[in-house]
Amino acid sequence: MIATPSDPTVVTLIPGDGIGPECVGAARRIIEAAGVQIAWEECEAGAEVFRKGLPSGVPPETIESISRTRVALKGPLETPVGFGEKSANVTLRKLFETYANVRPVREMPGVTTPYSGRGIDLVMVRENVEDLYAGIEYLQTPGVAQALKLISEKGSEKIARFGFEYARSEGRTKVACATKANIMKLSEGTLKRVFERVAPEYPELESWHVIVDNCAHQLVKRPEQFDVIVTTNMNGDILSDLSSALIGGLGFAPSANVGNEVAIFEAVHGSAPKYAGKDVINPTAVILSSVLMLRYLGFFEQAAAIEHAVFVTLESGVLTGDVLGYDRGTPTTDYTNAIIGNLGKRTETWTIRDVRPLQLPKIDPRPDYVRPASRSVVGLDVFVESPLSASELGSSLMELTHDTKLSLKMISSRGTKVFPPTGAMTETGDHFRCRFIIKEEPGDLSDGDVHELLVRISTAHSWMHIEKLQEFDGELGFTRDQGED
Amino acid sequence: MIATPSDPTVVTLIPGDGIGPECVGAARRIIEAAGVQIAWEECEAGAEVFRKGLPSGVPPETIESISRTRVALKGPLETPVGFGEKSANVTLRKLFETYANVRPVREMPGVTTPYSGRGIDLVMVRENVEDLYAGIEYLQTPGVAQALKLISEKGSEKIARFGFEYARSEGRTKVACATKANIMKLSEGTLKRVFERVAPEYPELESWHVIVDNCAHQLVKRPEQFDVIVTTNMNGDILSDLSSALIGGLGFAPSANVGNEVAIFEAVHGSAPKYAGKDVINPTAVILSSVLMLRYLGFFEQAAAIEHAVFVTLESGVLTGDVLGYDRGTPTTDYTNAIIGNLGKRTETWTIRDVRPLQLPKIDPRPDYVRPASRSVVGLDVFVESPLSASELGSSLMELTHDTKLSLKMISSRGTKVFPPTGAMTETGDHFRCRFIIKEEPGDLSDGDVHELLVRISTAHSWMHIEKLQEFDGELGFTRDQGED
Repeated sequence: MIATPSDPTVVTLIPGDGIGPECVGAARRIIEAAGVQIAWEECEAGAEVFRKGLPSGVPPETIESISRTRVALKGPLETPVGFGEKSANVTLRKLFETYANVRPVREMPGVTTPYSGRGIDLVMVRENVEDLYAGIEYLQTPGVAQALKLISEKGSEKIARFGFEYARSEGRTKVACATKANIMKLSEGTLKRVFERVAPEYPELESWHVIVDNCAHQLVKRPEQFDVIVTTNMNGDILSDLSSALIGGLGFAPSANVGNEVAIFEAVHGSAPKYAGKDVINPTAVILSSVLMLRYLGFFEQAAAIEHAVFVTLESGVLTGDVLGYDRGTPTTDYTNAIIGNLGKRTETWTIRDVRPLQLPKIDPRPDYVRPASRSVVGLDVFVESPLSASELGSSLMELTHDTKLSLKMISSRGTKVFPPTGAMTETGDHFRCRFIIKEEPGDLSDGDVHELLVRISTAHSWMHIEKLQEFDGELGFTRDQGED
Repeated sequence: MIATPSDPTVVTLIPGDGIGPECVGAARRIIEAAGVQIAWEECEAGAEVFRKGLPSGVPPETIESISRTRVALKGPLETPVGFGEKSANVTLRKLFETYANVRPVREMPGVTTPYSGRGIDLVMVRENVEDLYAGIEYLQTPGVAQALKLISEKGSEKIARFGFEYARSEGRTKVACATKANIMKLSEGTLKRVFERVAPEYPELESWHVIVDNCAHQLVKRPEQFDVIVTTNMNGDILSDLSSALIGGLGFAPSANVGNEVAIFEAVHGSAPKYAGKDVINPTAVILSSVLMLRYLGFFEQAAAIEHAVFVTLESGVLTGDVLGYDRGTPTTDYTNAIIGNLGKRTETWTIRDVRPLQLPKIDPRPDYVRPASRSVVGLDVFVESPLSASELGSSLMELTHDTKLSLKMISSRGTKVFPPTGAMTETGDHFRCRFIIKEEPGDLSDGDVHELLVRISTAHSWMHIEKLQEFDGELGFTRDQGED
C-alpha cells in the first residue's frame, strides 16, 4: 500500500490511557514533520470506555474505524480494577486476527545496560491469538482448575512463515523457533514441526529450534546470537518481556500486531498513570512503533528518516527521565522537538536497516486444513470427581463398565498413573482421569458406545469432562501418562 | 533427621549419564572428606536403562532404593532419541511427589558476568508435579492440538507454604509469587490467591505478587531485588533457566526436588556427553546440590564447611574450563582436590547462610480439600469438529437442541466468540466450542439432560470434548470468552 500526497492514508489513532496521549502525540508530530500525509481518525478505547459500562473496553465506533482503515496506532490501554474481565489490548488483537506480535529489541545509543556494546538487535515474533492466552478455563472440581492450551497447525504455519518473511523483509539472516516441544509434543510440538517443515522454503535463512527454557537462558547469556525468534503466545509473552529488559526497558520497546487484514501498532509499556501529563515520559517506544507502521504502509524512506533522527538524538545525549532520572531527563516535548530537528540527519555509527515490503503468508483457507486419510475413535478419557482412593475408584469403574465396548486401562492424577497401583507415592485429590480403551482392535467407537459408557459411570460417579481418544493415519492423537505403558 | 557416626545415613546415589559420574564422584569425595558418614546405594537410571527397553528409564530397583532411603543424589539423566516418551528426570520427580523444585541462584567469586558485583542471591521455588508439565494432550481435530494445564488448590498451598518455609529456614526476608493470574484467573489465579491467603501467617517475610512476564523483565533488569520466588511449573521452568544464566550458567546451578516423603538432589545441567570422561567439567552444581542435601539431612556444619571451601577455592582463582576456556581450566580432579584442601577455611568476603531445619508444610490430607456449601451444573461446553462456518453450525445446533433443557449461548474459536456473529475478522478452522446454558435459572442439569443434548448433537455433528459448566457457592466455575457477555 503506497500512498501519495494527493491520497492521504487513513489511520485509526487511539491515544489511550495515562501517558498514552503524550506518547501518541509525539509520534504523530514526528510523522507529520517527516512529510507523511496521514488522515488520523481519533478513536476511544480503554479505561473511560470500561467505566462507561462496556465490558470489552472497545466501543463499536473504534471497531468500525479499524475495520475500515485497517491500520491503527495506539497508546497503552488500562483495564480498571473491577471493570471488564478482558484486557482491551487483547480484545483488539483478537477481534482483528492480528496473529503476529512483532517486538524488535535493539541496543540504543546512550542507554547503558549490562549488555551495552554487544549489539543486541533481535526481533521476537510471537503468536498472538491462540494458546493459553485465550483464557479458556474451568474449575473441574472445587479445588482443581484447568486451562486449555489450544494450538492449531494453521495458526502455527501462519506464525512460522511470518517469522521467515519478516526476517527476509529486514534482510536478517537467522530465525530460531522456541517451543516446549520436549514436554508438549502435540501442542508446542506443532509449531516445531511446522517451523521445520517450512524452513527449507527459505534457504537463505539459517534456522534452528531451541527449547524455550534454554532460549531464556541463552537470551541472558548471549543475546547477540539471536536475530528473529518465533514462538508461541504464552512463551513469547515471557521471552519478549525478558528481551526488552536487555536493552534498557519498556521505554524503548515498540511492537506491531499484524494480521492478514489489519495491523495495530503500539508500545509494549503500560499507561503509567503517575507520570501522565507531566511532560516527563519517554515516547520512544510509540515513536518506533510508528516507524514499524510507516514501513507497513510503504513509507520506507520516511520511516528510515525518523529512525535515523531518533538514533542521532539519543547519540547526542538527549535522553528522557526514565534513563537519566526524572529530575534530570529531557522533557517529552523537548525530546520530540529534538527528533524533529534531527530529521534529515543520519547516524554514522548505528545501522538503519534497508527494509523491503513484508510478504504476508498466504495459507490454505479451508477449515479442514489438515485432512488425514484415515481416523478412528479408540477410547475415551473421562474426568471424574471422587472422594475415593484410586484403587476404590478403579474397582468400581471396572465393575460398572465390564460389559461395555470399553475397558478401563488406567486412572491418573495430574498426569501420573495411579491405577492399576504403581507403588509410587503419587498424591491424589478428588480429580481423576479415567482412560477407557476400546476392547476390539482395530475398532471405531460410535457415539452410542460413548453414551452407554457415560450412563454406566453416571450411576455411581460424577464426571465433569470428557475427551475422545482419536487416531489419525494410525498415529495416536493423545499422549500417554507418566507410568502408562 | 540427624545421623551419628555409628548410624550412617543411607543415600541413593545415581551417577547418571555423560559427565554425571564425574560430577557425582566429586561431590561424594568432598562429602566424605568433610567427615559425613553416608552409606551410598549406587543405582541405575537414564540412557542405559532406556536402551535395555524400560520406557521410564528408571528400573524398579532404583525406585525401591529411593522409597527406602528417601534421599537421592543424582547426576544428569539422558533420554536417548527414540527411546521412551518421558524424561527419566521428570519420572523420578513425579513418582516420589517431590512437589517443590528449589533452585538457588547466587553470584560466585571469580565467575564474571554482566551482573558481577551486584550480589545476586535468590532462590527459585517452582511447583514440580502439576501444570502443563504433566503433558496431557489431545489432538482435538486433525489440525488442532490441546494441552491441559491443571492446577490444584492443594498443590498451590503446598508450594506457597514451602516457599515461605524455605525463606524462613535460610533467614531470607522476601518472597515473591510469579503467576499469569491476569490472563488465567482460575488456574494461575489459584496460586496467586493461595499465596496471598497464607502470606499473613509469615508476618516477618515481605511478600508480593508479580505478573510472570514482568518477573522475567525484572530478573534481567534488577535481579538483586528478589530473594525467594514461588511460581508454577511451566513458568518456573523458564524463569529458573533465565536466572541461572545471570550468574554464569548451569555449571553453578544446584537444585533440590523436595516432597514430604522424599528429596532428590541434582544439578540442573545436562549430561554433556562430549565432555564426559575428559576430567574437564565443572562439578560445582552437583557439589552445591549435595550441600543442599546435607542441610536437608541435618548436617548443617558440614554443609557450611563445604560451601565455605567451594567459595574459598573459587576466590583463589581455581576455576574449571567452562569459565576459563577448556584449554586453560583446572581439571575436575584438581578442582575437587582444591576444595577438599580448603575444607576448614572460611571465606571472608562471601556470606554463608546460617540455615535452620526446613519445616515442610502440613496440608489437610483429605481428597475433597475444598468443600463448597453449594454447587450446581449450569451448562455444557461441547467442542465440535465441523467444516461449516460458525453461522451455519450455530443455526444447525439451535434447531437440533431447541426443545432440550439447554440453549446455545455462543460458539467460539480458540477463545473468541464467533456466533452469534460479532462482525469481527476472527478466523475459524474446524474446531468450535459450543456453549449451552440451562434455560431455567436457577437450575441444576442432570446427566440425563446432558445425554439428551449429546444425542441430539450427535445426529448431525461430531464432538470430541465436553466440559460441564459448574457453579460453586454461586461463583462461576468457568471463564467467559472474548466477546461473550
